[in-house]
Amino acid sequence: MMNYRKDLENMPSYDGTEKYYRIKINANESTMNLPPLVEERVLTRLSRIAFNRYPNEEYSALVEQIARNFSVSESQILLGGGSSEIIEKVFFAFGGAGKKVVFPQPSFSMYKIYAKAAESEPVPFDLDEKFDLDTDKFIKKIRDVKADLAVVCNPNNPTGNFLSVDRVEEIAKSIDCAFLLDEAYIEFYGKSGVNLVAKYPNLIVARTFSKAYGLASARVGYMIAQPEVTRMIDKTFMPYHMNVLSLATADIVYQMRDEFVPRIQMTIAERQRMSGRLQAIPGIEIFPSKTNFILIRLDKAEELKNYLESKSIGIRYFSPDAPGLKNCLRISMGNREENDEVFAEIKNFSEGLK
Amino acid sequence: MMNYRKDLENMPSYDGTEKYYRIKINANESTMNLPPLVEERVLTRLSRIAFNRYPNEEYSALVEQIARNFSVSESQILLGGGSSEIIEKVFFAFGGAGKKVVFPQPSFSMYKIYAKAAESEPVPFDLDEKFDLDTDKFIKKIRDVKADLAVVCNPNNPTGNFLSVDRVEEIAKSIDCAFLLDEAYIEFYGKSGVNLVAKYPNLIVARTFSKAYGLASARVGYMIAQPEVTRMIDKTFMPYHMNVLSLATADIVYQMRDEFVPRIQMTIAERQRMSGRLQAIPGIEIFPSKTNFILIRLDKAEELKNYLESKSIGIRYFSPDAPGLKNCLRISMGNREENDEVFAEIKNFSEGLK
Repeated sequence: MMNYRKDLENMPSYDGTEKYYRIKINANESTMNLPPLVEERVLTRLSRIAFNRYPNEEYSALVEQIARNFSVSESQILLGGGSSEIIEKVFFAFGGAGKKVVFPQPSFSMYKIYAKAAESEPVPFDLDEKFDLDTDKFIKKIRDVKADLAVVCNPNNPTGNFLSVDRVEEIAKSIDCAFLLDEAYIEFYGKSGVNLVAKYPNLIVARTFSKAYGLASARVGYMIAQPEVTRMIDKTFMPYHMNVLSLATADIVYQMRDEFVPRIQMTIAERQRMSGRLQAIPGIEIFPSKTNFILIRLDKAEELKNYLESKSIGIRYFSPDAPGLKNCLRISMGNREENDEVFAEIKNFSEGLK
Repeated sequence: MMNYRKDLENMPSYDGTEKYYRIKINANESTMNLPPLVEERVLTRLSRIAFNRYPNEEYSALVEQIARNFSVSESQILLGGGSSEIIEKVFFAFGGAGKKVVFPQPSFSMYKIYAKAAESEPVPFDLDEKFDLDTDKFIKKIRDVKADLAVVCNPNNPTGNFLSVDRVEEIAKSIDCAFLLDEAYIEFYGKSGVNLVAKYPNLIVARTFSKAYGLASARVGYMIAQPEVTRMIDKTFMPYHMNVLSLATADIVYQMRDEFVPRIQMTIAERQRMSGRLQAIPGIEIFPSKTNFILIRLDKAEELKNYLESKSIGIRYFSPDAPGLKNCLRISMGNREENDEVFAEIKNFSEGLK
């Protein structure tokens, strides 16, 4: 008899395979490949890899760079397969039967899945109508349920809004369970909570190469926390969990991260421009964003999604049962031309409704 | 308070960073980088990657190729980060509190760790003096302890010896719990149990690109099992767990796998030649091998390891508390020149002892 792990049958399966879109702005990816200078150096580096050897010093080389940039000790950094794997492992490390994870809702939809995968109980906490987090009530909830882990995505996906560093600190100092701060989109906002790590031993910051550094293909993320925390979470990673190709690529990208600054600035400018233009379309509500995407709400959200798909434009639609996201759509920022086309099609659609 | 998962503190941490060796034959890697033709095509492929995009069709492209090669359905294949991750996930899927995993000893040292990481109880079963597996007693043990998972590495690491397909089948048909057949080294033996999968719904075969295909850097492995089994184990993998660079590289390597046949044959020939030569050295016991390495035993094993290290030759030494491996050393096969040098140094060492 095949004795599968308890509750495994109830876990969902995933198929990440997506349709082709001419303009693909449904996954908060960068729509641009690496800057040519960076790509050239990445390919040169890849051409020098010992493909036959297990990973060796590539992991510590990247850790060293990141530690230096944040002026923290190398023992405070762990690498994972995207911030996804960092989050998965943090949930596992503080998880188990009877454990509770509190996180805002709507937020990154995987938190609920990671909680269940870790055999913990997910405890979603509703954002208000403006998608703002009432930090006092959030702190109270964490204490009331005796949470083992609290999670905040800042700025938040998919709503786009943010907490100030002061409010993040307010949470960190008011709770004593582990506190995971998911900063996947932080480069588009600019105000990181990383410096709080020195002060709060319960704080874990997760970061990724997938968004601002346009490296979603390689699956590289990292966490920053106090050494005692990384020492424990490191135990959840098996040897050789990172591959050399991704590590070498991320190493070059991180060395050349200044090359990405103009793109990040362009994305922020496009976000502001697009927010303003979309705001002018009647019937569409725009939520303020500090990320590389904009959340909008309109009565005919599903129809707009279908219309854009018919033009080979893929945006993110949320299923009607996603809490708080009824009639919402998420639009990642492309370059100026792509955004202009997306805007024109949304305008076409909305004028057709009159 | 930081409420870590139960027993996490007792899990070991890993540091894979190794010393540099001029001849590095301690990890059963290929000592040769990719064949030039293969490397050229891999680099061309890598130069065409959309680095900014999450993995999409790259996973299914490789699955399709593997399924076609084994004449099985695509639903029977899962990919992982080396066979390591495949094994980790199988242990997790059949693991949990009160679950038991039976595996031979000595064998791959990680089985015990994976069992503990899955919160299962590891139940090692001793090989005999010749490192042979008494399959009748092994089957009895699996039944007696009511195991949830049985594991066999064939050919076996680090002993090098093998079970015939008939004996593998004998196990598969005599137990009804999940049965993981770890075929990391199968290409050096040639007699796979993959065809048994159609007949035995409890059988899971794990394979890797790290050994015969010299791709340890990329961390790509796969499993073959019946669709119902892969459907369940797939639930243990989070979305985007494989990266595009490794998938694209493995895809090319698998397309060009005929290019590796001469190397595999060379490794087999070198293994035979080296076994014969080492056998002639008094005081060294050689165990017959069907892999890309040879296990030897001698009184002064630690001294020999140190001597070879002083010549910048890294071989695998087992700690004195590794069950059954006292005074054993494992030597991966290099190319002819490397092996000649290793042999000459072992001979020097052993003559110095006289």
